[in-house]
Amino acid sequence: MLYLVGLGLGDAKDITVKGLEVVRRCHRVYLEAYTSVLTVGKEALEEFYGKELLLADRETVEQEADSILKDADVCDVAFLVVGDPFGATTHCDLVLRAVQLGIPYQVIHNASIMNAVGCCGLQLYNFGETVSVVFWTDTWKPESFFDKITKNRQNGMHTLCLLDIKVKEQSLENLMRGRKIYEPPRYMSVNQAAEQLLDIIQNRRLQGEEPGTIIIAMLLFAASQFSFSDESLNSTAFLFILAACWSAAEDGFGRV
Amino acid sequence: MLYLVGLGLGDAKDITVKGLEVVRRCHRVYLEAYTSVLTVGKEALEEFYGKELLLADRETVEQEADSILKDADVCDVAFLVVGDPFGATTHCDLVLRAVQLGIPYQVIHNASIMNAVGCCGLQLYNFGETVSVVFWTDTWKPESFFDKITKNRQNGMHTLCLLDIKVKEQSLENLMRGRKIYEPPRYMSVNQAAEQLLDIIQNRRLQGEEPGTIIIAMLLFAASQFSFSDESLNSTAFLFILAACWSAAEDGFGRV
Repeated sequence: MLYLVGLGLGDAKDITVKGLEVVRRCHRVYLEAYTSVLTVGKEALEEFYGKELLLADRETVEQEADSILKDADVCDVAFLVVGDPFGATTHCDLVLRAVQLGIPYQVIHNASIMNAVGCCGLQLYNFGETVSVVFWTDTWKPESFFDKITKNRQNGMHTLCLLDIKVKEQSLENLMRGRKIYEPPRYMSVNQAAEQLLDIIQNRRLQGEEPGTIIIAMLLFAASQFSFSDESLNSTAFLFILAACWSAAEDGFGRV
Repeated sequence: MLYLVGLGLGDAKDITVKGLEVVRRCHRVYLEAYTSVLTVGKEALEEFYGKELLLADRETVEQEADSILKDADVCDVAFLVVGDPFGATTHCDLVLRAVQLGIPYQVIHNASIMNAVGCCGLQLYNFGETVSVVFWTDTWKPESFFDKITKNRQNGMHTLCLLDIKVKEQSLENLMRGRKIYEPPRYMSVNQAAEQLLDIIQNRRLQGEEPGTIIIAMLLFAASQFSFSDESLNSTAFLFILAACWSAAEDGFGRV
């Protein structure tokens, strides 16, 4: 059996009782380590679970899925994911592969930022499409997330903005040369996201558009900046970005 | 301290380890029992938690919140909610009351149908506004949920439809006469929801509109019809409604 187990959003004890029982009886336990990270490290999880964890980076999950699924038809294998297992596309892929191989699977759900965002006080019912605010590069500055936020706003909906995370990524040069040298991990800060959004607003104004007032509630979901046991931290981040965007509006969308 | 603890969507063991520790050390533990219910009853939860639970119905939560919050500034009180604590409006109210009374609070998040719906294979990123399909009465047949589904569809978004649940509700007559007599609990079935949607489509056609093709993925979230440890059940419900809606489309939106 393949078990996909959500770990929730905080620390080792945010796993469900059911999830913990599964982890403790599994033959192999993988920890997905690239779409999201917890505030506690692998070692803290291993100590609490009483089980050795195998780190599964993007390469392992996307290119070596068969090694994860090996013998899962005759023994139990767990695949741990921060948040809920179906927040990211690649884990659907893993399930589809298991199904194709005739391996049964079970999902142990947990909190995801997609529902826990309700803690900021905005009603979940009123959220439109979730967007990812991606790291801009010198040559790649997509603005599509801004258009989606605007569309949600026009429909009277809030937008949950997920901030980019780059773990074990190769530089373009190393990728092209096939060198397995990885960049240090990066987690987008609220400041960086706000900067990019304000840049887009400025671009639009230069093009003669008037983007209208947008209020953005942004929660940090990055290891060093997010603690789920301290809800006030979320509020701080939320208020910061709220303030930034209001100022931008009042200031004629200029830089704040 | 007031703790709002999410119970997840399945059975007693879907509580998080952190949540279980909180429940076991709290002075009073309330179980919210009207916005949603688990597949297991109060007794099964009490046995697993090793703790007596106080049932909190709509009346208690909305009109007697102060009794829940009593002494929460000097002792620990837990308020248990199926799914995640911030899925329903009233629990924000409880937090606001606590804050006004100077009572600190902490949220222990868990899976909600708002994120667990990802198990049906549709990407969470691509969900638009969530709608509630409410029970129609002889004199009240709102169609707004249909318009929201249509709007989501026009924007290329899926819609999560929450099916109505009526627990400890008074009939209009008993409500007007102030008689505390409650109707038996009702949980909307996928069939009932589909019937209402098809009725609306038929109404619109009679009015000369052509509503267009809508595909609706609907998951059951009612005690007797939803088992989270058996994901195939979800698929069945999903496929049923999918089939119903496709047939409706092919059949010129007639009754199927």
